[in-house]
Amino acid sequence: MRATTALKRAIQTRVNHTAVVFEKEKKTWGEVGDRVKRGASVLASLGVQPRDRVAVLSLNNATYFELLFACPWINAVIVPLNTRWSIAETERGLNDCGAKLLIVDKEFLPYAEALKEKLPGLKLVYFGSGACPGGYSDYEALIANAAPAEEIPAEPDDLWSIKYTGGTTGHPKGVMLSNRNVYTAAMIWVATGGFREESNYMHIAGFFHIVSSAPAVAITMAGGTNVIVARFEPEATMRTIQDNKVNFSTFVPTMLNMMLHDPALPNYDLTSMGDCIYGGSPIPDALIKLAIEKLPTWRFIQGYGQTESTGILTSLPWAAHFGEGSANKRRATGRPGYGVELRIVDPDGNEVPLGDTGEVVTRGTNVMPGYWNNEKATAEVLKNGWLHTGDAARMDEDGYIRIVDRLKDMIVSGGENVFSIEVENAVSSHPAVRECAVFGIPDEKWGEAIHVVVVCKAGHSATADDIIAHCKTLIANFKCPRSVEFRDAMPMSAAGKIQKSVMRAEYWKDRDRSVN
Amino acid sequence: MRATTALKRAIQTRVNHTAVVFEKEKKTWGEVGDRVKRGASVLASLGVQPRDRVAVLSLNNATYFELLFACPWINAVIVPLNTRWSIAETERGLNDCGAKLLIVDKEFLPYAEALKEKLPGLKLVYFGSGACPGGYSDYEALIANAAPAEEIPAEPDDLWSIKYTGGTTGHPKGVMLSNRNVYTAAMIWVATGGFREESNYMHIAGFFHIVSSAPAVAITMAGGTNVIVARFEPEATMRTIQDNKVNFSTFVPTMLNMMLHDPALPNYDLTSMGDCIYGGSPIPDALIKLAIEKLPTWRFIQGYGQTESTGILTSLPWAAHFGEGSANKRRATGRPGYGVELRIVDPDGNEVPLGDTGEVVTRGTNVMPGYWNNEKATAEVLKNGWLHTGDAARMDEDGYIRIVDRLKDMIVSGGENVFSIEVENAVSSHPAVRECAVFGIPDEKWGEAIHVVVVCKAGHSATADDIIAHCKTLIANFKCPRSVEFRDAMPMSAAGKIQKSVMRAEYWKDRDRSVN
Repeated sequence: MRATTALKRAIQTRVNHTAVVFEKEKKTWGEVGDRVKRGASVLASLGVQPRDRVAVLSLNNATYFELLFACPWINAVIVPLNTRWSIAETERGLNDCGAKLLIVDKEFLPYAEALKEKLPGLKLVYFGSGACPGGYSDYEALIANAAPAEEIPAEPDDLWSIKYTGGTTGHPKGVMLSNRNVYTAAMIWVATGGFREESNYMHIAGFFHIVSSAPAVAITMAGGTNVIVARFEPEATMRTIQDNKVNFSTFVPTMLNMMLHDPALPNYDLTSMGDCIYGGSPIPDALIKLAIEKLPTWRFIQGYGQTESTGILTSLPWAAHFGEGSANKRRATGRPGYGVELRIVDPDGNEVPLGDTGEVVTRGTNVMPGYWNNEKATAEVLKNGWLHTGDAARMDEDGYIRIVDRLKDMIVSGGENVFSIEVENAVSSHPAVRECAVFGIPDEKWGEAIHVVVVCKAGHSATADDIIAHCKTLIANFKCPRSVEFRDAMPMSAAGKIQKSVMRAEYWKDRDRSVN
Repeated sequence: MRATTALKRAIQTRVNHTAVVFEKEKKTWGEVGDRVKRGASVLASLGVQPRDRVAVLSLNNATYFELLFACPWINAVIVPLNTRWSIAETERGLNDCGAKLLIVDKEFLPYAEALKEKLPGLKLVYFGSGACPGGYSDYEALIANAAPAEEIPAEPDDLWSIKYTGGTTGHPKGVMLSNRNVYTAAMIWVATGGFREESNYMHIAGFFHIVSSAPAVAITMAGGTNVIVARFEPEATMRTIQDNKVNFSTFVPTMLNMMLHDPALPNYDLTSMGDCIYGGSPIPDALIKLAIEKLPTWRFIQGYGQTESTGILTSLPWAAHFGEGSANKRRATGRPGYGVELRIVDPDGNEVPLGDTGEVVTRGTNVMPGYWNNEKATAEVLKNGWLHTGDAARMDEDGYIRIVDRLKDMIVSGGENVFSIEVENAVSSHPAVRECAVFGIPDEKWGEAIHVVVVCKAGHSATADDIIAHCKTLIANFKCPRSVEFRDAMPMSAAGKIQKSVMRAEYWKDRDRSVN
């Protein structure tokens, strides 16, 4: 029961069917299987041993998909790096996981160039389009001459991947996901999502995101087809759906919104879709009305989960968006998927009465063993075997969960989790800033937008642009504040703590939830 | 991830929906959950501790279904006994598993009465219809006054159940199935079989059989409805389908055949079905033609598996029975289910070239940890982590598996596995028998019928009826020979071994498989 179990079944049952489509490229499962085995040989020839970490920093492409299986084929751990990270964040991630290899595409050559002297032990590999520059191993050239590797035995608890998420302690944390985790999650996806060999599934989010890499294994388990786009761009995505008759995908509502408002929308035939999962927060009624009008064949399914649970925990089927009692259900994030164990608990870990608000917790073989090299952070979320999600929710008597607040100091903006402390660290390092508080405010496009309240040092001043530009040198663009508010003083609690919740509440007071 | 995970999800998401239907009784998931928790209290009050074995000897009923969850709720192990066993076999089974409790219904009171003095440590419990006799604890009376039990923690490797199968060594072996096994199998069923909350699934086979008890957990995982019949009887089964609008079930071809030839068939509306799994061997073309004619809404799916793999390994969908190239596929037993790892190997455990014949082996968290108290038998089938099924098969390039022979000396008759050696032991104990050889011969009704060749001692003689009547005192009826052939001598190998294969081959020579 490992990531490669899915690949072996796909080769066994779908050898001559299309496995992967990327731009003009199409490969069958037989071809992908062969390339995975030869790719595994290449990794081994570059010195990768079982349990070594192989970092990948790249936009999505067909070979990246293969690496999701080539690494575990030799029981190495794939570490797909966030493509929106700053160079500083990337350096920290590579150091944190102790990567032996960094595989980059053309787009991220500047990162590798900037880091190669700081990380002299790291071997550099180039893949994807364009000529391989000097100083890099050429993955495509090596694979052409490699023999297929034998699969190296692995235990169910050996790691398949490490995926970085925002950190409550100010730095991204590496979520360890084992073979058992990804196998379980793939089965939950296949059972709950109804993945089949007829599924022609488009991966939009980067493979560094669990929302793309877990379905990649699940679609493989089902023997379906993986249609890969390099990155989200509304018109290119529409063209990909049309040209490949995509019938299944996952979007964040922000992307959906952009596509629906794109002037090119009427030029494309998008009627092959199908089931469309959207992530993590209720779809606004205005958006769903527009979607029904413009995309009448699309059936939306809400999915909710975390990287720490290898993705999906609950799903809200299309039927629950309408019909009897659906107005109420539509505000929910769904019911536990098949095979998911989930409950709502009080701070002592006891289940709260039905309808009361508590924290969403889950346990099972889909839950990570912990954060890489971070026992403290692990102990904060894994208690008595239960993963504490940090989301406050209520459950109704049919098992529908409605998320009402977030217990962690985190912002979800355009589908990405941003921990306030990471942003506060960046803002605070500006020489004019005495103190600051970062929180999410409602935003039509991004769900939540990152907002910072700043108090300047006596005799100092700064503009909003100064603060934002300073942040961009330190953290990923998507984590930088979108708005800056200067105040003379922060509201303080009796104990002398900044009352962020008071400032945040002003922005959310007329809404029925305190998160989006 | 345990058997009770499925029940908890069903209670959480389907509290007011029908969980179980038995005769005139209907219960919701809320009611079943409550009875399971109170039933668990009853078991604990009778002295059942975690990991104790609780044996059940009963026809199927609604409370039996609840026991599949009440035992694991307190981390006790349910041992559903074969209702076709002789009293002697039942005694051996109870001793082998060291059962603390024996729960019987009215039908099996004579067994309990016959055994109670031989097994003085065994506590007797009565359930089901009729008044509780003296000397038995009354399950229904106790449950009425019991408080719901708290769930007792269990490890994924703690046992959910022990199920007995025929024994190569002459006695049934106890297959240990862990919580992890049944969770995995339920996910494979839900994903591969497409179980949904709309599934109105009829359990025909006894719960002692994996073909009923694994789907019971899987339908629970899906939040569907379990329609239970006490035992197979063609007209009662048809009435149950009609009255409950059953839309999913599993049959052995023998039962299907009986139903199709039943004169009452035209009196019932069976159009609610639906998907119908049939087990373990290709459906004869004549039978499928008749089924299509008489049951046009039924979609047949072949399933193949073993108790040792917690059931299902491969499935052949209805679509593969027809259409392009289907004549060839229809002779197959299907492709590996979602999440199943399976291969065809030579005697050294190496995968054979595609299309060659070898043994079917499988591994994964659906595979039993071993046989209860029987390391020798365990070592014979679990080698290097792979379960050796004893079935010889070929795989085609689409992953379809065609079973061509059986490596174990076993007969599959009417869906039951019978090990020849068990029958030979019974026949040999007849005073007139010098030696005997038991094997399966083709049979239109049973797939295979049990045939015995007997050589009598000098100066002794016996009739076929003598031999069969003698066997009935020792082993279950379904294991007894249907035909007896007397010979003067057995064909012998140069090494002096009886050449059973030579005698068997005479009966199978004009067929494309050597098993049915």
